Amino acid sequence: MEKLKKYVSVKDEDQFYHQGAVELLVFNFLLILTILTIWLFKKHRFRFLHETGGAMLYGLVMGLIIQYAAKASDAESGTVYECEKLKSGQSTLFINITNQVYEYQYKREISHHNVNGHQGNAMLQKMTFDPSIFFNILLPPIIFHAGYSLKKRHFFRNLGSILTYAFLGTAISCIIIALIMYGFVKAMVHTGQLKEWDFHFTDCLFFGSLMSATDPVTVLAIFHELHVDIDLYTLLFGESVLNDAVAIVLTYSISIYSPKENPNTFDAAAFFQSVGNFLGIFAGSFAMGSSYAIVTALISFTLCEFPMLETGLFFLLSWSAFLSAEAAGLTGIVAVLFCGVTQAHYTYNNLSPDSKMRTKQLFEFMNFLAENVIFCYMGLALFTFQNHIFNPLFIFGAFVAVFVARACNIYPLTFLLNLGRKQKIARNFQHMMMFSGLRGAIAFALAIRDTESQPKQMMFTTALLIVLFTVWVFGGGTTPMLTWLQIRLVLVGIDPDEDLKVEAASQSASNPDKNTTKAESAWLFRIWYSFDHKYLKPILTHAGPPLTTTLPEWCNPVARLLTSPSAYGDQLKDDDTDYIINNDELTENYESSAHMPVWDRTGSTQATA
Amino acid sequence: MEKLKKYVSVKDEDQFYHQGAVELLVFNFLLILTILTIWLFKKHRFRFLHETGGAMLYGLVMGLIIQYAAKASDAESGTVYECEKLKSGQSTLFINITNQVYEYQYKREISHHNVNGHQGNAMLQKMTFDPSIFFNILLPPIIFHAGYSLKKRHFFRNLGSILTYAFLGTAISCIIIALIMYGFVKAMVHTGQLKEWDFHFTDCLFFGSLMSATDPVTVLAIFHELHVDIDLYTLLFGESVLNDAVAIVLTYSISIYSPKENPNTFDAAAFFQSVGNFLGIFAGSFAMGSSYAIVTALISFTLCEFPMLETGLFFLLSWSAFLSAEAAGLTGIVAVLFCGVTQAHYTYNNLSPDSKMRTKQLFEFMNFLAENVIFCYMGLALFTFQNHIFNPLFIFGAFVAVFVARACNIYPLTFLLNLGRKQKIARNFQHMMMFSGLRGAIAFALAIRDTESQPKQMMFTTALLIVLFTVWVFGGGTTPMLTWLQIRLVLVGIDPDEDLKVEAASQSASNPDKNTTKAESAWLFRIWYSFDHKYLKPILTHAGPPLTTTLPEWCNPVARLLTSPSAYGDQLKDDDTDYIINNDELTENYESSAHMPVWDRTGSTQATA
Repeated sequence: MEKLKKYVSVKDEDQFYHQGAVELLVFNFLLILTILTIWLFKKHRFRFLHETGGAMLYGLVMGLIIQYAAKASDAESGTVYECEKLKSGQSTLFINITNQVYEYQYKREISHHNVNGHQGNAMLQKMTFDPSIFFNILLPPIIFHAGYSLKKRHFFRNLGSILTYAFLGTAISCIIIALIMYGFVKAMVHTGQLKEWDFHFTDCLFFGSLMSATDPVTVLAIFHELHVDIDLYTLLFGESVLNDAVAIVLTYSISIYSPKENPNTFDAAAFFQSVGNFLGIFAGSFAMGSSYAIVTALISFTLCEFPMLETGLFFLLSWSAFLSAEAAGLTGIVAVLFCGVTQAHYTYNNLSPDSKMRTKQLFEFMNFLAENVIFCYMGLALFTFQNHIFNPLFIFGAFVAVFVARACNIYPLTFLLNLGRKQKIARNFQHMMMFSGLRGAIAFALAIRDTESQPKQMMFTTALLIVLFTVWVFGGGTTPMLTWLQIRLVLVGIDPDEDLKVEAASQSASNPDKNTTKAESAWLFRIWYSFDHKYLKPILTHAGPPLTTTLPEWCNPVARLLTSPSAYGDQLKDDDTDYIINNDELTENYESSAHMPVWDRTGSTQATA
Repeated sequence: MEKLKKYVSVKDEDQFYHQGAVELLVFNFLLILTILTIWLFKKHRFRFLHETGGAMLYGLVMGLIIQYAAKASDAESGTVYECEKLKSGQSTLFINITNQVYEYQYKREISHHNVNGHQGNAMLQKMTFDPSIFFNILLPPIIFHAGYSLKKRHFFRNLGSILTYAFLGTAISCIIIALIMYGFVKAMVHTGQLKEWDFHFTDCLFFGSLMSATDPVTVLAIFHELHVDIDLYTLLFGESVLNDAVAIVLTYSISIYSPKENPNTFDAAAFFQSVGNFLGIFAGSFAMGSSYAIVTALISFTLCEFPMLETGLFFLLSWSAFLSAEAAGLTGIVAVLFCGVTQAHYTYNNLSPDSKMRTKQLFEFMNFLAENVIFCYMGLALFTFQNHIFNPLFIFGAFVAVFVARACNIYPLTFLLNLGRKQKIARNFQHMMMFSGLRGAIAFALAIRDTESQPKQMMFTTALLIVLFTVWVFGGGTTPMLTWLQIRLVLVGIDPDEDLKVEAASQSASNPDKNTTKAESAWLFRIWYSFDHKYLKPILTHAGPPLTTTLPEWCNPVARLLTSPSAYGDQLKDDDTDYIINNDELTENYESSAHMPVWDRTGSTQATA
């Protein structure tokens, strides 16, 4: 008997093993299909459906197939499906696709409870995986890569505008969505579609905050390929990346905002606590991310000889930034973003040429895979998630709210910013920014994180539909829209960064004042740049002028201690390094844009004029 | 109330989130420490403790710290620990370190059961992760990398010997260990340490099969760095890699070998079923792995323009080989090994230069990380695993059995092989092979897979100790042993592959017969080589002579269809490709051996004489 039991247990275990493999295989298959499709699209220069849209489409089709297969298998096994369906709410939703651990456990559990014959349903549930995978496994590489490949010069030049859009814009967007949704909810209560106590204003705010995260993936991939005006690119990129961070912290702050008595009343103490939380978490995450990067920069000083060790350390320390932030109750995504920016700025200069390439390619690859997994999965979730609540009025309201909020974010803020900017943000740029307000992975991940109550399920369904719609319609419409708005493309092969530098160098030699009037927030940029160039770069990298020349004379002993030996010598080294970085970006651009149409050969002059 | 509950649930969820981060952080920290240590060792050319041994040591220390921390926290919280300890057997052991899914679920579960105050214990359990992670996440990249970086020419030259050691040797080793252990078990029953029905002969066979997997990681890393004689390297490498595959399938076959009545009697039907299982699984996995690689080769024909897509596809299809084998009830490890070999042989030739480098570096990196995680974890498991059973007699018996079995494997088989080999395996090589019988990750993973019953727990503890001992003592002793046995090192910078080819080319031109007498199993090698060169390479790669010249004339239409356009032209292309591969290996060798001592500059001549 004991023997038999052992035998059965081995057999069982074996089966779980294989079942996990099947689900992973489905994902692999989807990804392979996506890659082949991307290849076809790229080969035939087909731009109306971007790869992310394609991945989502495949996911959708696969979800449909799985659902029908599941239904068929349920019909065959003849079990009472509905009852189980009700029972298996959120608790059976969490499935790990990266390995078989959980479903093993899960299977064990249900086998304890003697639930059999639900293979179809189990399959459906298994294809729906844990939101924490988004946050812990899939998002960090994407966000890190975004930070690591950020064009720093342009980012800092437009820092003021980017911060305005990201912080103020997201707050505006969140509040406007919340207000409009609250109106629709009231209307739904009026028509009897919803009970009043189901949906508080805080829930609306929660929805607003999660819908305020615009997605950097789709539009930016297209922009990058098409070499759209670098300032527009930087504005949108900076906005959407910081936006994500802001939305995540905002959602978290709102979810722990709990007025003590009536949830519908305004509790000033709780509100200020939330604001405090928000600022504390944001600043803490920023500090955490940057300090890990600085540690990496300091360590990488010594490791140049062994590219593999260097790459490994780089990877582990960057991931640790994320994990430490999470462990400390901060936001890992924000930490990893700033870690990426700082790594690119300092550590990258210390790496051996081999490691530079290795880290770039590694993060590029991880980003590519993670991105496609997320979009495949979003398509899949439309059919495999078991607790969708489609409420037409709510969905309609959400669509309206999202567009109104985007308009209230972009146009008024741009008007205000243009008052201060020397180089105005043109009207067609504004329309393009309005159009580029796609919702993507972050909105989805924030929505799927909590689907326990019915309002949350309704929000999830709505968020998913908005994501699908915006990615397909707006993502696919990016190229025609750019043509229609007559937004000029940068000449291939000339990196505006370079122009800027050459210009800046000649200007600062002849007339330094001219430089400050050039770009908006140039004063902020200049202060930072000079501090960074004189003190941080020499301490943290092999590049930059030696500290002995930049620090006052009485600091010489300290300066000598802190300066790397190779920083002595020619003072041009820093410029060389910048040149190398720009050159790298250039090569990358060359690669991905081998087939791009060149519309306007004067774009680059216009951008830097 | 509902609000409060929600609030609490958010808080709870949050905490799990952070807890998972803490454990991952511990692993990251261990890995960072290991990397820094490796760097120190490499810098100071310190060879007595290899990096894998170092990783294990750090794991051990960390395990000790965690255990004491856990004990302290238990003492503080004042809970009755022992009772929980007994209850929490294997079912609480499965933890996923790659993300937080499972412990999230786990926490939910125990919170349902109202178990509180066991943070320390929970931490201990959490640091012990699921064996399936070994098989599904950590081992595949290592094994794939082994196959992908295999020196094919030498492998095929020594194919006969390698297969003999791997198949016959593993079977001998398994049976001898089983017999010796059965003797010890009888003795233990006699002394009353064990009840008779606890331990059957099939259990002994199971232990024998899992202890028969020698580990390729440690010794080969050292061999690779030192450029030990290429034939010895190939023999050991081939043996230990195939060995793993054989041991895995063998363990599986034994675990499902179930005589119908008394488990101690011999059931011929069940035995032959097991043998049939073994052969079927092995052949099926081989076919699965190779066919995925062939599909990759055919697809990669067309993808050359986009390195990122190519790399992605390469990665996904290789992983699919593993998953498909698992899903079909075969052995993924075996499939992924042969997939790697085939990918290196065919697909590699079709890749763009950029993808060649990307795939190499990607798999190298994954291999590096996975290897270090496994060894860290093995150290950790000695203290964090909760159900160790240390039985001195059993452990002593196992040590004796492992060494006797290794001797019975190497010496008699080498004697038999030397009868047939032109180029004998020297005595000092035999001693080195005997000495290199380390047990590593596979033995550990096979042992931890089933720790439900007490005999299995005893086996696990014993296996872990043998792994620790052999990796530290034998791994650390490799360099002195090589000196002591006077095994010559190959001259750096001259790849014996190249010598062989040049020699073979000149010989086959003048006197083809001479070639067959050159190396053992050359006839097998020749048949395969000529078939591969004439038909497979032209169909599957851009390299090789056009099929139109190798196929009979009446096949011309088919041949033209199948030949890639670029295969026409010069017939030397295949040699060029080989040259490139060899050159790549050369570069890699150069890289990793920048600091190696050159002991014997005549080694390479001796190896090919």
